[in-house]
This record gives sequence, structure tokens and C-alpha cells, in this order.
Amino acid sequence: MARPCTHISRVYPDRVEVRGRDLAGDLMGRLSFTEYFHLLLTGREPTEEQRFFLDLLLVAIAEHGMMPSNVAARMTLAADPGSLQGAVAAGILGAGPVVLGTSEECARLLEEARESGGDVDDIARRIHAAGAKVPGFGHPVHRPLDPRAERILELADARGVSGPHVELARRLRHAVAEVWGKPLTMNVAMPIAAVMLDLGFSSDAVKAVPILARTAGLLAHLVEEREQPIGFLLARAAEEAVEPE
Amino acid sequence: MARPCTHISRVYPDRVEVRGRDLAGDLMGRLSFTEYFHLLLTGREPTEEQRFFLDLLLVAIAEHGMMPSNVAARMTLAADPGSLQGAVAAGILGAGPVVLGTSEECARLLEEARESGGDVDDIARRIHAAGAKVPGFGHPVHRPLDPRAERILELADARGVSGPHVELARRLRHAVAEVWGKPLTMNVAMPIAAVMLDLGFSSDAVKAVPILARTAGLLAHLVEEREQPIGFLLARAAEEAVEPE
Amino acid sequence: MARPCTHISRVYPDRVEVRGRDLAGDLMGRLSFTEYFHLLLTGREPTEEQRFFLDLLLVAIAEHGMMPSNVAARMTLAADPGSLQGAVAAGILGAGPVVLGTSEECARLLEEARESGGDVDDIARRIHAAGAKVPGFGHPVHRPLDPRAERILELADARGVSGPHVELARRLRHAVAEVWGKPLTMNVAMPIAAVMLDLGFSSDAVKAVPILARTAGLLAHLVEEREQPIGFLLARAAEEAVEPE
Amino acid sequence: MARPCTHISRVYPDRVEVRGRDLAGDLMGRLSFTEYFHLLLTGREPTEEQRFFLDLLLVAIAEHGMMPSNVAARMTLAADPGSLQGAVAAGILGAGPVVLGTSEECARLLEEARESGGDVDDIARRIHAAGAKVPGFGHPVHRPLDPRAERILELADARGVSGPHVELARRLRHAVAEVWGKPLTMNVAMPIAAVMLDLGFSSDAVKAVPILARTAGLLAHLVEEREQPIGFLLARAAEEAVEPE
Repeated sequence: MARPCTHISRVYPDRVEVRGRDLAGDLMGRLSFTEYFHLLLTGREPTEEQRFFLDLLLVAIAEHGMMPSNVAARMTLAADPGSLQGAVAAGILGAGPVVLGTSEECARLLEEARESGGDVDDIARRIHAAGAKVPGFGHPVHRPLDPRAERILELADARGVSGPHVELARRLRHAVAEVWGKPLTMNVAMPIAAVMLDLGFSSDAVKAVPILARTAGLLAHLVEEREQPIGFLLARAAEEAVEPE
Repeated sequence: MARPCTHISRVYPDRVEVRGRDLAGDLMGRLSFTEYFHLLLTGREPTEEQRFFLDLLLVAIAEHGMMPSNVAARMTLAADPGSLQGAVAAGILGAGPVVLGTSEECARLLEEARESGGDVDDIARRIHAAGAKVPGFGHPVHRPLDPRAERILELADARGVSGPHVELARRLRHAVAEVWGKPLTMNVAMPIAAVMLDLGFSSDAVKAVPILARTAGLLAHLVEEREQPIGFLLARAAEEAVEPE
Repeated sequence: MARPCTHISRVYPDRVEVRGRDLAGDLMGRLSFTEYFHLLLTGREPTEEQRFFLDLLLVAIAEHGMMPSNVAARMTLAADPGSLQGAVAAGILGAGPVVLGTSEECARLLEEARESGGDVDDIARRIHAAGAKVPGFGHPVHRPLDPRAERILELADARGVSGPHVELARRLRHAVAEVWGKPLTMNVAMPIAAVMLDLGFSSDAVKAVPILARTAGLLAHLVEEREQPIGFLLARAAEEAVEPE
Repeated sequence: MARPCTHISRVYPDRVEVRGRDLAGDLMGRLSFTEYFHLLLTGREPTEEQRFFLDLLLVAIAEHGMMPSNVAARMTLAADPGSLQGAVAAGILGAGPVVLGTSEECARLLEEARESGGDVDDIARRIHAAGAKVPGFGHPVHRPLDPRAERILELADARGVSGPHVELARRLRHAVAEVWGKPLTMNVAMPIAAVMLDLGFSSDAVKAVPILARTAGLLAHLVEEREQPIGFLLARAAEEAVEPE
């Protein structure tokens, strides 16, 4: 059997080594959690711009009202109050392609667009013809603009980080408006994907940002739930909305 | 039915408000993810010391070799490669009282010690008499000291953050050595709990730190798993270690 | 390292052996799923009474309206439609001690009562004095009786299966009414625990019944959700019940 | 907002109604768990043949050695011993398209084959040309035949249940052998899908069978884990197989 290997960390009786560095003697107290997350994910400490934008994207997507995943997590904690981890897991499971995991689909779309020479009009037309949705466009509340998406684009331009993927995202916005016959909100998932790709992250890593970020938001809801439980009230409101016929 | 309420965030068509602040117009680009996590959890932006120690504790506990939760998560991703969130959930479910969630037990113990007037000898004796383990003591690899625990205590002293809970943790270490007849490693869970309580966090929030931190470590393992899959090899190694009856 | 072992099954190129029997050549087509579940759990094929009551208890607890766990699972499927397993996991995580896992607490209580000589009055008084709830008593909808609980007791009596644990459950009902000054509904969790213990199951296995049963109910809700999605409507009803202040 | 509705069950103070029937007064004690599962899923009580095959398929897929999902679940229980539900959830999350959820992919493939007029050669060629795997073919241990798959086909023929989907599955086996230039093991997932479709289940419901079945297997492993813990030994064996460089 092939010998499986990992490059992330190893543990000795008196030392923990992460990405070749001494955790207690070097990293702890020197790196912020965001810098450490970058090191963990990529093996490299971030540049100042990478650090800034990783913080920015994590802050952008961590919390957004009483999302379905927050509701599911609070109900789960109400039913199993001792298990913070069970409630977080229940909430994280909602990070699928529809709501929170869309940035992965956006990254794949941007990569496909780039490989195919950037013909975003063709991509938009094909998706429209298939009756499908374009990842990263449309939002149930934010119209005409998603303020988080605009702020990310603005800062990426201002700090010179916008590259080919941000440009493709913008051109896709125009193509989508053209093909759909009306502008659709570019939601926060698209600039997250575009900026991460322009910063050099692989598309395999893009979804790590919304998942880590949303875990922070879930934990805030669950600590509030412990102090002021509403999980069963939420469940009852949902139940009462149902017509059991 | 009572009207459930939340104080964390609310969403408008053109604005997201978190803890009363404008997410896109104020927080994004200004706060680091760690500062934002503090704001989400407590409703307050952290002081510089709170920020420093929240970063420190998150870095201390995020990653520690090929932990059982990393193994479980990698196996899960191998079986369901499209679902990063499913694999993260499977890993987070291992954050129970035995391995990763111990800091919550430590916090409850320190609070109990404090309320009962600080008689740590009595507490150690009672736990020993019951044949139980003291939360936060003992480690399968780190002996005689857990370097992460020592580094946290050192920095807490150096920056004047050590308060009554850090003191109780230290006294408990002596009491445990006395009662057990030999020193036991104080592991990283105990200083995490002690420093968080000394910084003013409620014990309900203590476990939020290891859960968020370990999510970062899990994501690093899962991105590595996507690039270089070993999940099934790990499963086979585990399976081959088993003697079926 | 000690050699870990298991007694459940082993796999050969041309044969699967479960509990020492040939899966394809013997068990498949001969055993019902319930009989097989008994064999898997205990290593023994059930007697006719064990089979009857295992079926009865599984049917009793599998489904009970739009429970919080069903709501959480449907929201999760709406967010991640491809992952039936993720949605089932989110729902199962709600099987904690408050709602669905109570039968484990009931089993521990009945064992404790039995070991202490059956003084249920003393047990009821101690729980009442501690301001706690008695596992297995009280229900938000079923009053004065839980029809499922009564049916289980009736059949256990009729078929001569009621033993010391069913008797203790009944005596506990009287003790609770006495101590609380009014009858409390004995809910379905208590007879499930009592009958399983009287059938010879260990208390470690009691919760396996509600978990397996509820998985069936969750799957029914999730297949319905695929055909007729309401997950986001439920989430919105919950969200709209919240006053974000 | 549209009024969401469900047709599965509703709860009254003195009655639980499931699919229009009285749970305590009618179903409990009359239906086996398998019959009830059919009723829950489809709204109809099964015919004798439907019952027989639902039992057969559930038994076929419930347990298969120390699978990755069993390993992951046992590690999770070791880390969080109180939470049987958390460990089951961690195990179920492994029911993705690669290992355990393949029957859903098989069902989609059979439906596609049927709609396209049954040209299985063309389907096999297209999959082969794309360098992909055919769902339901290949097995790491069972060669040349999966005994569970053969037993299902045998009983389906013997009892006259084999219909167009079983026929397509068989023709696909030949086409695959032709196109790949050697026979590939038809694994248990394919006859599960074929028989369920021939029995009248929708493809949306096919995966409910392996998920429910495997939950039973997981529960057996977890009850054994409680009695005789090996979760950490499995984790250590996996960890020691890794070269952390």
C-alpha cells in the first residue's frame, strides 16, 4: 500500500511543527488567526495584501441575518444543548451550492471562462438556454446591488489586487444583464471567488473561506441561543406555517 | 407565543447591519476576522489585549497533527468528494469532551473552583476519589509539558492578562500533582479556558474558540485531501489494524 | 498497540459474513430488516416476541409531525439538494436528550431505580427537589396520555413481555404524580426504554431504536421535500417570527 | 407566502395520524418497520412483493465490514462518547456517490438509459470515452462477482419482479464488459436501484434504502464501540500509516 503523507503538521513530545515552523516557539503570538489560516491552507505566510483580503472576505461572508443554517443550528442546539459541535455541524451542512457554497461554483465558472478564452457572452447564453441559474447572480434581498460584493470590488481595485478573474466577473455581469434582458444582482459569492483566484488560491480552496467564516457566525448564534433560547420557538413558527393535509 | 429575538444582525436590501454596525460601509476592510469574531460573539469590538489573546488561542488549538477528527473528515471527503461541508461537519463532530471540547469542561471546573472559594485541593481529591479524570490534565504525546499551554501562560503573565482563573489553573496543577502523586501534563485546554474567563468571556463561549480554530485545521487537511487524496488509505490502514473477532 | 477487534462482520472476495452467518447465502431473503437489525445489534436472531416488539417500538417513534429535526433536515436539503446524507445527518443531530434521545435517559433512570431497590418515590422526590425534569414525563401536545406510550404498555402486558422495568415505569408514573401534585404525561420514551430493558437489551443499545426509527421518518420528509420543496418557506417562517433588535 | 404543506403526518393531543392512518390504534403492532417505512415513503402500504424486496435490499446493504464510514463513526464516538447521534451523523455523511450513495447514480443512469431507448452500448462508450467510471460497476474486494448483487438478481427473477430496469442493468453489464475489454463486477448498488425502480419507487427515493440500512450497521458498530472501545486505536493506526513530511 502506498505510504500516505501530509505536509501540514507533526507532533513531538516537546514541540508541534506546523508547515515546518515551531507552533509554540514561533507562530503563537506572532501570527494572527487569519495569517495562520493562510499558512495552514497554502504552506506560505501571506503577504500584507493576501492577509488584508483574506480578512476582508472572511468578514464579508461570516454573518447575514437569521439564515436557514442559523435556524437549523439553533433548533439542533435546543434539542441537544450540550453539543455545541453537533449544532455547528448541522448548520455547516447547509453550506451547499444553493446558499453558501456558491463561491466554489463561481470559481469553477471563472476558471472555465478563462480557459475558454474569456467568452463570457457565450457562457451566459449557454446557461440561459439550459434554463439554469448563473452562480453568483441573483439575491432574495439585495437589489439592485449586494453592498458586500460592491465593497470587495472597490477595495480590490483600490489596492491593485483586481486581476483577470475580477475582470471576468465584471464582464460576466454585463453579459448576464444582456442575455437575461435585465441586470441581476452580483452577489457576494462571485467577488469572493474572483479575488481569491486573483490572489493565487486554487479553486479547491475557495470554499474554505465561506465555511470558516460562517462557522464564526454560527457560533455567535449558538452562544446567543445558550443565553436566550429561541430554537424551539423558531421550530414552532416553521411548524405552524405548514398545512398538514 | 413569545416573540423570539436576536441581537446579532439584520439584513436590508442595501445594507447589512451586524451588532448595530454597517457591515460593508464600516466593518469590511477595517476589522480583522478575529476582531469580527469577537464582535459577533460578544457585541463588542475587542481591546488590543483581547484581540491578541483571541488570535493566540485560535492559533494554539487549530492544528495538531493527524488528529482523529482530521482522519474522520478526510475519509468522509474521500467518500463524498463534492461536499466539503459534509467532511467539515464529520470532523467537527469529534469536538467532544474527550479530545477537543475539553476547554468547556475546564471552564466549568474553574468557575466551580472560584465559586467554592478556590479550594482546589478538595476538588482534586474529590475527582480522584471518584476515579475520574481532571479536565485539562494529561496528554498522550506531550510530556512533561504541553508547549502550547506553557506559551499561553507565559504570554498571559508577560502582558498582564493573567487573573484569578489563570491562578486557579496553576494551583490546580499543583493540587493534581499532589493528589495523583506525580505531575500530570497541563494540556492546552486549561489555559485556553483560564485566559478566556480572565478576559471576560462567559463559560458558554469558551468552546467557540476550539471549534472555530479546528475548523481552520480541518479545512487545511481537506484542501490537501483534494489535491492529494489519502482518505481511503487511512481507512484501509485502520481496517487492517482490526482483527475481525 | 493492542489489536482492536470487532465481532460484527467480515468481507471476503466471494462472501460477506455477518455475525458468523453468510449474508447472501443465508440472511438475504430470510430475515426481515428488523430481524437483521436485532442480529446486528446483539449477535442473536430475535425470538418472535423480540421481533414483534422491536417492530412495534420502531414504528412507534419513527414519525411525529413536523418535528424540529424534520424542519432542520428540510432546510438543509433545500440548501444542498444533492446531499440526502447531509440532510439526514443534520436531522439526526437533533436526537439529543431533550427531544428524541430521552429514552437513553429513561433507561439509565430505570436501571438506577432497579439497582437502588426500586424506591421510585425517593427518586421522584430527589429530581423534584433539584428542580429538574424527570426523563420520560411531560409532553407539549399529548395530554393527559400519550397514545403511543399507552399502546406499548398495553401490548407488553397482553403478550406477557412486561417485566420489572415496565413495572418500575408504572410505579414511577404514580410517584411523579404524587410528588408533582398532578399527573404528568408518560411519553413514548419511557415505555420504549422499559420494554427494551425487559427484552434483554443493554441500556447502551436503547437509543439505537429511536435513532434508526427517526432516520426513516427523516427520509420520508426528505423525499417529500425533493418532490415538493418547502424548506426555504419553513426557514422564512422561522426568520419572520424573529424580532431582530 | 405560499402555504407550505406536507402529507406525511399530523399530531393531535390524543392521536397521531400518519398517512391518514391512526398510528397507535392501527399501525402499531400491525405493521413491521419495513412496511411502515414503505408507507412513510410512498403513502401506500406495500404489497407482499414490495415488502419482501424492501426487506431484502435493506438487509443487503446494511453492513459490510469495517467500512470507512464505520471507522469515522467509531472515532467520533470515542471523542464524544455521550453523543450516539453525532457519531451516526459522522458515519452517514460518508454515504456519498463514491461508496454508499452510488445507487442514486445507478438509478439516474437506468432512467436515462430507458428514456433514450435503451442504447446501453452507446452509454457505456460515452462514459468510457470521458474517462469516467460507470456507477454500479467495480468493487475493491468482490471479484469476479458481488454475491449480494447476484442474490438480489436471482430473487428478483425467481419472484417475477425483474422488469425493464433489471433488464437494462444486465445489458449494461454486457456492454461494460465489451467496452472495457473485460468484465467488471456489478456491485450491489446497481440491482438495488434496478429493483427499486421496477417496484415503482421514484429515483428520488432510491438512496433512502442504503441510508436507512447503513444507519442500522452504524448503530451496531457504535453499540459495540461503547462496550469495547477501539475508536482511538483505529485513529492511531491511521495516523501511524501517515508519513508527515
